[in-house]
Amino acid sequence: MTHPSPSRAFVSLIGAGPGDPGLLTLRGQQALQAADVVLFDYLANPELLRFAPDAETIYVGKKGFSEYISQEQINALIVAKAQEQGGRRVARLKGGDVFVFGRGGEEAEACAEAGVPFEVVPGVSSAIAAPAYAGIPVTHREAARSFAVLTGNTKEGGAHYERLSGVDTLVLLMGVRNLGQIAAELIAAGRDPQTPAATVQWGTTPQQRTVTGTLQTIARVVQEAGLEAPAVTVVGEVVRLRGSLRWFDLPG
Amino acid sequence: MTHPSPSRAFVSLIGAGPGDPGLLTLRGQQALQAADVVLFDYLANPELLRFAPDAETIYVGKKGFSEYISQEQINALIVAKAQEQGGRRVARLKGGDVFVFGRGGEEAEACAEAGVPFEVVPGVSSAIAAPAYAGIPVTHREAARSFAVLTGNTKEGGAHYERLSGVDTLVLLMGVRNLGQIAAELIAAGRDPQTPAATVQWGTTPQQRTVTGTLQTIARVVQEAGLEAPAVTVVGEVVRLRGSLRWFDLPG
Repeated sequence: MTHPSPSRAFVSLIGAGPGDPGLLTLRGQQALQAADVVLFDYLANPELLRFAPDAETIYVGKKGFSEYISQEQINALIVAKAQEQGGRRVARLKGGDVFVFGRGGEEAEACAEAGVPFEVVPGVSSAIAAPAYAGIPVTHREAARSFAVLTGNTKEGGAHYERLSGVDTLVLLMGVRNLGQIAAELIAAGRDPQTPAATVQWGTTPQQRTVTGTLQTIARVVQEAGLEAPAVTVVGEVVRLRGSLRWFDLPG
Repeated sequence: MTHPSPSRAFVSLIGAGPGDPGLLTLRGQQALQAADVVLFDYLANPELLRFAPDAETIYVGKKGFSEYISQEQINALIVAKAQEQGGRRVARLKGGDVFVFGRGGEEAEACAEAGVPFEVVPGVSSAIAAPAYAGIPVTHREAARSFAVLTGNTKEGGAHYERLSGVDTLVLLMGVRNLGQIAAELIAAGRDPQTPAATVQWGTTPQQRTVTGTLQTIARVVQEAGLEAPAVTVVGEVVRLRGSLRWFDLPG
């Protein structure tokens, strides 16, 4: 009687970081190096594929492709690839962190339901790192003792902008096109229209562009500058620190 | 006439990640390898010093030392070390991320004021990664469309627990001893006492311990289990996902 050999099936859900490939973690690099298959996102820097030169690579980004791939299809693909050929190692490379929006929890659930062992390799979140590369700390002594991260993407369900007044710094991921509406809701809920605000496009990459204004003006400033997704918006007194802490996107 | 050679003085403010040394970023590793001096924290894993075997190392953690070192002294030391011997490369290794509490903004300000060039190397925040290693995503479709990170350390200034009702997931860093008081304030402000809650001690390390309860019971559960700092507490429906997504601290 022979025993079946243990399956190699394994999924690493990896946060690729916010864009700068140097912000991948060491564990993320190792998981890529060990992968048989890499499924990667629109927001995961494709340079990172260099760590897996021999792996099968599958682009599952939702932008830039004419054929839409649904989250359910991605979940099924991750599981199917892990179960192929008696079990393969899958690296699922996601922009930013695994569990900060981006639906990594659903991918983990799909693995758990299929009985495929998985691990989570957290990544540097663009919610924190894009502001940091613009010289803006999300917390700062006296200026900010708390921060909240919200999606500005109303498809994922609108946030409760009217009940956030206890949070000092607000970080909005995605939804740069809804910025005017979100700012108006925050002002209507009592947040000072003069609160400093900044939007950072392609944060942490050589293409990083940052504009600043106030809660009242930021949507117009963003539009005039032509900033589009991917972009992170920070609202709070901490935005003032950019004046002294700017270190990456220095003025030419 | 001779020109003075350009100073090598440079400070890298590095997020060491939440504890697992594999969660250091590639840039963090490179900055350590290039460092002449490393100043490290209580919460930065000392294993990471292996990347800088020849550097001068200075422990500036505030715990475990009988002599207290103030933040002002740390700021001055970073600048002084960078300016020594005509300029040295300083790696300032901080637990978690640089700008999520921990006063990294003040260290950056000290560099800026002294004219010492600096960079920020964001790290994986324990606010997101400790829950992730406990199988808890801070956001999840339908369960959580926003999260806030607060310090439970009242020395850093209490948070506005009464005006956070628009936030789905709350993450409390530090202040595990104040947990009973914070939970009571959140309940008084209208958050459901039955909201699931989890506390993760030494998250992402082999010593990780996780306990779960509700907003009403978590302080007692933590006390009975003997959990102390460093610990991260998550409050929100997402805590239920640990039942299916637990992958790291598996039951023996």
